[in-house]
Amino acid sequence: MKHYLSLQDIPDFDKAILEAIALKKDPLSEKSIGRDKTLGLLFFNASLRTRISTQKAAKNLGLEVIVMNFSQEGWQLEYEDGAVMNTGKAEHIKEAAGVLSGYCDLIGIRAFAELQSREEDQKEKVLLGFATHASVPIINLESALGHPLQGFADAITITEQLGEKVLPSLNKEGHVPKVVLSWAPHPKALPHAVANSFIVAMKRLNVAFSITHPKGYELDPKITGDTPIEHHQDTALKGAEIVYVKNWSSFKDYGKVMVEDPSWTITSEKIGNAQCMHCLPVRRNVVIADNVLDSDKSLVLEQANNRTYAAQWVLRELLKTMP
Amino acid sequence: MKHYLSLQDIPDFDKAILEAIALKKDPLSEKSIGRDKTLGLLFFNASLRTRISTQKAAKNLGLEVIVMNFSQEGWQLEYEDGAVMNTGKAEHIKEAAGVLSGYCDLIGIRAFAELQSREEDQKEKVLLGFATHASVPIINLESALGHPLQGFADAITITEQLGEKVLPSLNKEGHVPKVVLSWAPHPKALPHAVANSFIVAMKRLNVAFSITHPKGYELDPKITGDTPIEHHQDTALKGAEIVYVKNWSSFKDYGKVMVEDPSWTITSEKIGNAQCMHCLPVRRNVVIADNVLDSDKSLVLEQANNRTYAAQWVLRELLKTMP
Amino acid sequence: MKHYLSLQDIPDFDKAILEAIALKKDPLSEKSIGRDKTLGLLFFNASLRTRISTQKAAKNLGLEVIVMNFSQEGWQLEYEDGAVMNTGKAEHIKEAAGVLSGYCDLIGIRAFAELQSREEDQKEKVLLGFATHASVPIINLESALGHPLQGFADAITITEQLGEKVLPSLNKEGHVPKVVLSWAPHPKALPHAVANSFIVAMKRLNVAFSITHPKGYELDPKITGDTPIEHHQDTALKGAEIVYVKNWSSFKDYGKVMVEDPSWTITSEKIGNAQCMHCLPVRRNVVIADNVLDSDKSLVLEQANNRTYAAQWVLRELLKTMP
Repeated sequence: MKHYLSLQDIPDFDKAILEAIALKKDPLSEKSIGRDKTLGLLFFNASLRTRISTQKAAKNLGLEVIVMNFSQEGWQLEYEDGAVMNTGKAEHIKEAAGVLSGYCDLIGIRAFAELQSREEDQKEKVLLGFATHASVPIINLESALGHPLQGFADAITITEQLGEKVLPSLNKEGHVPKVVLSWAPHPKALPHAVANSFIVAMKRLNVAFSITHPKGYELDPKITGDTPIEHHQDTALKGAEIVYVKNWSSFKDYGKVMVEDPSWTITSEKIGNAQCMHCLPVRRNVVIADNVLDSDKSLVLEQANNRTYAAQWVLRELLKTMP
Repeated sequence: MKHYLSLQDIPDFDKAILEAIALKKDPLSEKSIGRDKTLGLLFFNASLRTRISTQKAAKNLGLEVIVMNFSQEGWQLEYEDGAVMNTGKAEHIKEAAGVLSGYCDLIGIRAFAELQSREEDQKEKVLLGFATHASVPIINLESALGHPLQGFADAITITEQLGEKVLPSLNKEGHVPKVVLSWAPHPKALPHAVANSFIVAMKRLNVAFSITHPKGYELDPKITGDTPIEHHQDTALKGAEIVYVKNWSSFKDYGKVMVEDPSWTITSEKIGNAQCMHCLPVRRNVVIADNVLDSDKSLVLEQANNRTYAAQWVLRELLKTMP
Repeated sequence: MKHYLSLQDIPDFDKAILEAIALKKDPLSEKSIGRDKTLGLLFFNASLRTRISTQKAAKNLGLEVIVMNFSQEGWQLEYEDGAVMNTGKAEHIKEAAGVLSGYCDLIGIRAFAELQSREEDQKEKVLLGFATHASVPIINLESALGHPLQGFADAITITEQLGEKVLPSLNKEGHVPKVVLSWAPHPKALPHAVANSFIVAMKRLNVAFSITHPKGYELDPKITGDTPIEHHQDTALKGAEIVYVKNWSSFKDYGKVMVEDPSWTITSEKIGNAQCMHCLPVRRNVVIADNVLDSDKSLVLEQANNRTYAAQWVLRELLKTMP
């Protein structure tokens, strides 16, 4: 593993999940592996869980952590090759990435989709700019297109809940649990990153995975592939063991909010016996009702807690490749 | 001690003061008690002394510290039960507190009074929201109604200055020093938190305590209780050994500035031989004159310095309760 | 060394450069010298390199680091003696510096020139305010008039590139390399701090140093002294081994941008065989062309990397004076 840009950077997903669960049981077992090494965390957007769980994970490995809110504390970055920098942007990604590689042994980057232009967002200019121009491993703390620390933590959570039968290498036959990703309403236009990474994660597990959303909310077909899509939420949720809830804006009519239909809000009645997941922050009673979040059907705190061990596994793997 | 929300959470105040003074003499004596534990510090408002003294205290105990300026770096929080979250607030206190409890072993919170509505401020929604929904100890770094780390540091400072005779358990008779809390003018409307905690602290010491302020500036009678109040500042200050100076806005006409009368500014002439205290930041020549602050009558730097040991004592007591 | 306010605070510059180069080879060789000591870093302006390289340097010495973005996280400071503080400024430098001296063993300060008034900037009110009122060593992380950590790192970089012959104590005769400081255009008015410190550094090396800039861009004559100034850039650059590029605004017509002449942009053609330096951030294709920055003529990343060892040397020297 050179960088951790997407879930595809984890070569053996089953093994990674099992190792992360083992780390959770003994988080300080490798406290010296990061000694005298520095993790830089660069935030271009707000962050609670990612900010703190990644710091926690780093400290569990003995790493020093330097946090920087790049937009406020640093300089506006230019990403275009050959740009004549006579406007507001004071520093080019080439220098920023090069300089930080001299100070940090690993760099985490959070930079959301701007949802103004699909073409622009698909360039992943911040994440890939750093990956291209830095000489140290880059970790995706949520980019325009993916949130692979979340997707990994979600897979860990599902494995803990449903058991190792969800890991293809351990159980290629037998009962296959049903997992549904359900769109839900939200007052603001949100990126696709979390949904994308959850889909990628589910494709690597032994689950019967499907997606439900109103018409017009199709995600990137390159990511959904042959995943079944059902436009009737009730039909989709029937028999599910896990319902993963998430809002996203339109991919086709890029970044637009098409529907805010409150009948898509996830309630206790809708999910029946299924367990409910969400990456947080969650708008209560808009995305998911109190009667789910305040019940034992909610796995949201477990997911957040597993962010630490997902990050810790990733950091450890990257540290292993260093002298 | 489960949380440190107010001075009442310190069961034996005399003992706590003496132990904090002992910590000050040997601050690194318990450097391993916080090892592998994490303190999260959440700031909803500006902070200099609290921010840095609490970090210093934590590091003296071997704690890891994660600082977050919540308003800028995180998500806007909703505090109402049952809220339909379709406005600007992205995350509910239930999730924020629950998630942070997974990452941090202790959480400190600073959230000032907004001074818009007495009813709202008295709910202490931020501090008590975290105390209710977190599963780890919460430390008050100044809330709407109190600043108990400041009140504790003030009591430590007074004990250092006046001697152990101010501790009721050590001297129930003899000379009782006079301590006066004096209102002073200020161009902005300020909260009541510091004054409130100072009053609570003084009631637990063996001092003759009174308050002086212009008419209309009465503090919450539930807090002042039977403390003598004198509206003539000169009369009030006569014979005082300690004058604690602080501005606050009206409690009755909630959050309003009624008077900016410069004759209430504390000067060297007014305090005579008394020593002068203030929590800082202080507006020079508005609240307190240069001829006090630049003289050896000023205890303000000692008070600030004692913030470290107040915080360190609180953190240590909370750590003692942990496995 | 009591403080590190300017390059003049380094008594033996040759020795300091050689020691910093030695630290670079073995940065963890003194990991315990800062143990149980705290460095406070106060930023009044944006910072990338200074922020992170100084943290890195501190951690290499075992120091605890507390970072504060003073303008957003703290209180607005008053610097005038005797001010009646009834406007927006909540805290006086006297208290801020005094209080922080109780929490930190060393304090670094970044506060740029405001470029509104030469008289005001020349007072260095932030840096000198802290140096006057703090009781611990102050480190200049770029002030109105100087950037001595940058100037020191630049001298380290030049010594690494040109060899020890640039150190007067080691080679008082023989080949004297030519070093030119060239002004370059920039869309914004920039301070003089970096240029000032570079000039001071070059005067302490065994180099043939000159400056080139358009007429009207003369720097403070007290700093340039008898340094040759050439207004034809091409003539100036002829035979140079090092070209240090930097924009600054007018000193005479204080803080104004007089010229944005693109013919002053540094290109590969202009610098010939010289190596190119810049403190970063750099506006590509305005200050320096891509064909320089993307070539092996560019030393900008080495300069940035050497910031760590410049800071580490300074911190170590200051720590040596402490009990």
